[in-house]
Amino acid sequence: MGPHPAVAAIRLAVRRVLHDVLTEHRAGTAAPTDAVPSPEPTTPLVLVACSGGADSMALASALAFESRKLAVRAGGITVDHGLQGGSDVRAAEVVTRLTAMRLDPVESVAVTVGREGGPEAAARDARYAALDDAADRHGAAAILLGHTRDDQAETVLLGLARGSGIRSLSGMAAVSGAARRYRRPFLQLDRQTVRKACVAQELAVWDDPHNSDPAYTRSRLRHEGLPALEKALGKGVVEALARTAQLSRDDADALDSWAADAEALVRDEAGRLECAKLHGLPPAVRRRVLRRAVIAEGAPAGSLFARHIEEVDRLITGWRGQGAINLPGRVEARRQGGRLVIRQG
Amino acid sequence: MGPHPAVAAIRLAVRRVLHDVLTEHRAGTAAPTDAVPSPEPTTPLVLVACSGGADSMALASALAFESRKLAVRAGGITVDHGLQGGSDVRAAEVVTRLTAMRLDPVESVAVTVGREGGPEAAARDARYAALDDAADRHGAAAILLGHTRDDQAETVLLGLARGSGIRSLSGMAAVSGAARRYRRPFLQLDRQTVRKACVAQELAVWDDPHNSDPAYTRSRLRHEGLPALEKALGKGVVEALARTAQLSRDDADALDSWAADAEALVRDEAGRLECAKLHGLPPAVRRRVLRRAVIAEGAPAGSLFARHIEEVDRLITGWRGQGAINLPGRVEARRQGGRLVIRQG
Repeated sequence: MGPHPAVAAIRLAVRRVLHDVLTEHRAGTAAPTDAVPSPEPTTPLVLVACSGGADSMALASALAFESRKLAVRAGGITVDHGLQGGSDVRAAEVVTRLTAMRLDPVESVAVTVGREGGPEAAARDARYAALDDAADRHGAAAILLGHTRDDQAETVLLGLARGSGIRSLSGMAAVSGAARRYRRPFLQLDRQTVRKACVAQELAVWDDPHNSDPAYTRSRLRHEGLPALEKALGKGVVEALARTAQLSRDDADALDSWAADAEALVRDEAGRLECAKLHGLPPAVRRRVLRRAVIAEGAPAGSLFARHIEEVDRLITGWRGQGAINLPGRVEARRQGGRLVIRQG
Repeated sequence: MGPHPAVAAIRLAVRRVLHDVLTEHRAGTAAPTDAVPSPEPTTPLVLVACSGGADSMALASALAFESRKLAVRAGGITVDHGLQGGSDVRAAEVVTRLTAMRLDPVESVAVTVGREGGPEAAARDARYAALDDAADRHGAAAILLGHTRDDQAETVLLGLARGSGIRSLSGMAAVSGAARRYRRPFLQLDRQTVRKACVAQELAVWDDPHNSDPAYTRSRLRHEGLPALEKALGKGVVEALARTAQLSRDDADALDSWAADAEALVRDEAGRLECAKLHGLPPAVRRRVLRRAVIAEGAPAGSLFARHIEEVDRLITGWRGQGAINLPGRVEARRQGGRLVIRQG
């Protein structure tokens, strides 16, 4: 008798990612460029980022199982955010559980969460910094993250609420980070399957009270917003949102590459942006060129909103002699003699 | 004392659209290409499509007011869908109210609603066919529609639920139809403002029971889905969705134009699609080229889903000798000697 279907599903998802990691690792370590003989290919280390919650415990279990059948070493990291009483005890518990799965190395990392960007963003920043650091210290080839298709749907809705265009609808990538470090094997699996895999394997899991705390936007979305949307639009909403993420990501990538090419073509010999040439671009491409140019002059990307770029765009498409436009990061845009001049004050 | 701010807002929105219509009308009728003297420019007719509901009654009132100050004739059309008992009486009532606003011509048009695509789509199709016909008969330069920013937000969510990419997120256009016939002056006004303008002008309005009938997807979205989303994500959701529509529309237009250009470049002298060249395109552009090609061979656009195109795409990016792919409209795609052959069986 094979494993429970949910267990088979999470293992298959992890196996596919491990195959990718192995293939890329071999391509990266093989084929020496000089005459020195290639060293024996090393066995790559793959870490799982594990909170002790159901999704990442399921991920750890699948990693532990699949790594034994492949030339992969498997370890685990849990991050103690120090935001709740007893979080250190819980982190120690996660270490015990991961060790019992025979993952090695297993490590708990305590971080200090700041306040920048709100509580969720600050916790995330601290977490990824700690994971990056752990991966560097251990020389890990990849870190697996337990985000499911439901997390992806929530991320798309959070991006939609920003109203800042298709890049913010593109959710989380299956592969991201420097050197393609982060991998999300469960991005196409629904949360219910992952939870079932925990039950079927009798994994002890921890329910983070933050996940059901209505003080958090994501929690409200998960427990009220998304269910109401499903009730109105039908059960396929989560899948539709996840597909929207993938399509939007590809579209945003294509338009970004177009904008990068176009930017070179709309500059004169002195490197100044020519308004007439900008005017000839499709609006979607022109706005991206403007955004690139404003960021290149020092405007912080995170503070630059669609309305800022629209105002700069009106220097091109709605020119009636308006003055300089003030942008975040003390950057200024003005039209001068048929050229768009963008500089930091 | 000026008008109520909500009344001022709806009038300004209509005034801007009438200015556009006038400018385009003059550009179209002036400047004869031969030596014959130009005829006196005619006064264009603008019709309002009016259900008798608050949004379109507010629109009618603003059109009546603004048209008197401009060289524009104003009329109104109400469509009797015949879906509810007494709909003919209500249509006659709307005619009376529009006539009292001194709109002329005013007309009620009865239509027969079919069943294709579900009740909402069938009613919409019948309505637009009747409006097109009325515009043709009266030689109208434009038809104004009362869709608000809230309607736009609902349309974006309905598109999101399809999960078929950014074109379906782009909602309704401010200008659409043959010869830029349809105009939506209220697309950037919220429903509340428009409703307030009705109250301030003491306009009698009709509440369509369909708008609050939970049997209709849009009604569920309006009364349950969107409020729950606002509760989770904050009050700015409607505005964010409307902005997403505009940005997605521009992005989709740019990518469509890229795909049209790219399609010519990936065909060989005999007009066949070359797999190697297709492979070199960004995925977002390649999928659009494939979609265009499949539709050109006879597949009905409405039955062609993202998963169909993904399967065709795998003939390019995941070639492992797979056989012909069957597509809607008896269209077939196969790879043959480095060419992608798409034809109707």
